[in-house]
Amino acid sequence: MNKFSIGVDLGGTNLRIAAVDEQGNLVEKVTLGTKVSLGRDHVIGDMCDAIQRMSEKFGDSAPLLGIGIGVPGIIDMQTGMVRGSPNLPGWEDYPVRAEIERRLKTVVILENDANVAALGEQWLGAAKDFSDMAIFTLGTGVGGGMVLGGAIWHGANGMAGEFGHVTVEPEGQLCGCGNRGCLEQYASATAVVRMAREAIANDSASALARTASSDAEFSAKSIYNLAIQGDEDARRIFRQVGRSLGIVLSAMVNSLNLPIYVIGGGASSAWEAFSPSIFEELRRRSYVYAATAPHDPTATNEGASARIESGPGRKTVITRALLGSDAGLYGAARLPMIEQVRR
Amino acid sequence: MNKFSIGVDLGGTNLRIAAVDEQGNLVEKVTLGTKVSLGRDHVIGDMCDAIQRMSEKFGDSAPLLGIGIGVPGIIDMQTGMVRGSPNLPGWEDYPVRAEIERRLKTVVILENDANVAALGEQWLGAAKDFSDMAIFTLGTGVGGGMVLGGAIWHGANGMAGEFGHVTVEPEGQLCGCGNRGCLEQYASATAVVRMAREAIANDSASALARTASSDAEFSAKSIYNLAIQGDEDARRIFRQVGRSLGIVLSAMVNSLNLPIYVIGGGASSAWEAFSPSIFEELRRRSYVYAATAPHDPTATNEGASARIESGPGRKTVITRALLGSDAGLYGAARLPMIEQVRR
Repeated sequence: MNKFSIGVDLGGTNLRIAAVDEQGNLVEKVTLGTKVSLGRDHVIGDMCDAIQRMSEKFGDSAPLLGIGIGVPGIIDMQTGMVRGSPNLPGWEDYPVRAEIERRLKTVVILENDANVAALGEQWLGAAKDFSDMAIFTLGTGVGGGMVLGGAIWHGANGMAGEFGHVTVEPEGQLCGCGNRGCLEQYASATAVVRMAREAIANDSASALARTASSDAEFSAKSIYNLAIQGDEDARRIFRQVGRSLGIVLSAMVNSLNLPIYVIGGGASSAWEAFSPSIFEELRRRSYVYAATAPHDPTATNEGASARIESGPGRKTVITRALLGSDAGLYGAARLPMIEQVRR
Repeated sequence: MNKFSIGVDLGGTNLRIAAVDEQGNLVEKVTLGTKVSLGRDHVIGDMCDAIQRMSEKFGDSAPLLGIGIGVPGIIDMQTGMVRGSPNLPGWEDYPVRAEIERRLKTVVILENDANVAALGEQWLGAAKDFSDMAIFTLGTGVGGGMVLGGAIWHGANGMAGEFGHVTVEPEGQLCGCGNRGCLEQYASATAVVRMAREAIANDSASALARTASSDAEFSAKSIYNLAIQGDEDARRIFRQVGRSLGIVLSAMVNSLNLPIYVIGGGASSAWEAFSPSIFEELRRRSYVYAATAPHDPTATNEGASARIESGPGRKTVITRALLGSDAGLYGAARLPMIEQVRR
C-alpha cells in the first residue's frame, strides 16, 4: 500500500473518517454520529478511537503521513485552536490539535471545513490540476474557500472565503451576520425554502402551496422537484439563486480572474435549475468573463481544455463540484501530504 | 550609488520616467508629454531616448537592473505585448517589450498601470511591509490591483483587479462595460460629476447649481470643495461614493481577508468626505471586518501595529494611498528588482 493519511470530516451531525492514500484512493471510510450534546471531550474521544483503529489496521503495511481534520469553524492555524464555531459549542479556547496529537502521537492539522472542501475538489475533483480555484458551498448557509498557488488561502485572520456574506442586494433581506442582502439569503437551501414560503403567502393556490401542505419535510429538494417538472413559481426561485450567485461570481471573476470556480454543497444538486441564470448574469456583468468564457460554458470538456491552456487564451470555467460530501474528507486527508511536501 | 532601475509611467497624457535605487530613493524624474496622436513608434522613440539619457547619466557609477514600464492596458506577460488599451490605440499586436529591449539592450518588464501602483504602495507607501494588499484607484474610472505573497496577482488572463466593475446596485446605473450598477458608476471622479448634475436637475437653486454655472471646469474637485464647506448636497454625493466603496470593500474583506486595502488615484484626495461612509458600511456589512477592525480605523498608527501583528489578532486596515501619482513610477521601477530576486 502507498503512504496514506487519515482525513476527518467533523460535522455537526456526522463524524466521518477515511484513510486515503497519496494517489487519492479512498481505502476505508467510517461514519459515526457526532455526539455534540455529550460534549467536546466525548467527541474527541470517539474521534481518536476511530482514527486509532484505522491507523493500526493500515499502519503496519504503509507509513501514516498524519491526520487532517476539517472543522466547521474558524481555526487559528498557529495554535491549532478553534476560534469560533456555532455548531461546536464549548470547543473554543481549548488546544484541540495539541490534545489529539498527544493522544495519537502523529502530525495533526486542523482546517476550516469549507477550506478542506476546496482542497478536495482541487486535488481530485472539479478543479483537478488547477493550482488556483474557489469553491462556493451551498447548504444550510453559503460558505466558501480558495486555493491559490496550490495552497489554501487563509487570509490574515483565517477568515477568507466568506462568499456567503458578500452583498447582493444592498437593501435586501436581513442576514444573521447583521448585513442586508447577503448571498446566503438568496442561494442557500434555507433561502430557497424561505423564498418558496414568500411565494406561497402571495398565492396560496399554487403547486408550491399544495406541496408545502402535503410534504412534511418541505425542503429545497421538494422545490427543486417542482422546478424540474416545470412549475414556474419554483423555477423563478432557482433563477433568483442563480442570479445571486452570478452577481457574486461576476465580482470574483472581475477581481481575481481565477481560471475556475466550483459550486458545491448539498444544494448544488439543483445545478440544472439555477446554473443558466449564473451564466446569464456573468455574461452581462463581467466583461472579464465575457472575454474568457468557454464556447459552451456547461460542457465538461471545455473545463478540460482550460486546464491545458495558459496565458491570455485561457478560459474561465464555472462548474459544479464532483466529489459531493466526500470533498471535505479527501481535502482533510490531503493536508498532511501537502505539509510533507512543504517541509 | 546603489544599484538602480528605471521606472516608466506611460499615461495617456504624460510620459514620466524616473531612476530609483534599490532603497527606494528617487534619483531623477523627468516628465514628457505622451504624443499619442503621433503614433506608437513616435512615443516609443521618445521613451527610449529619455531612458537612454538617464541610463547613461547614472549607469557609469552604478549597475542598471532593468526597465519597468506601467501601461494603461491589459498586458500579456509572456509575450510582452499589449492585449487591449483604449488610451493607446494602435499598440495592440505589436512586440512592445521586445522592441524596447532591442533598442536599449537591457531587461524590460511591461505591467498594467494599476498593478504597478499596487506594487509601489506595497513597496514604499501605505502598505509598506505588507506582503498581501489590494489597491482601489479612483480616477476617471475605478481600477485596482493586488499584491499577494509579495508578487503582483495577475489572474489567469492578466485581468485581475477590476474592482471598478464589481456590481454595487444590481439594477443601477448603466456602465460602459455592459453591466448595471458598477462601482465605477458611483466612486469615480466621473461619477461624482454625474451625480452632481443629477442633483442640479432636481434643484436648480442649490449651491451645486451655482458652482456649476460659475465654474467652467466643474469637476469632482469643485464638488469636494463644496462638501468640506458643509454643503449637504455635495456631502450626500461623497456619502454615496463611500457607501459604494464600502459595499465592494466588504465583499473583498469577506472573500480575501487581506490585512490592508489602499484607496488611491486622483479622486482619493476627497478621502475626508467619503471615508466615514466606507467604515460605516464595512462595520455593518462585513462581520470579518467587525471582528478585525482597528479601535480607530482612521488612525495611521493602527496601520503600523497591524504590520507587526500577525495571526488571529491582526487588524484589517483601510487607508488612503501615500505616494500620489508617483506610486506607479515607484512600482514600475520595482519590477526589475523583484525579477532579479526571483531569478
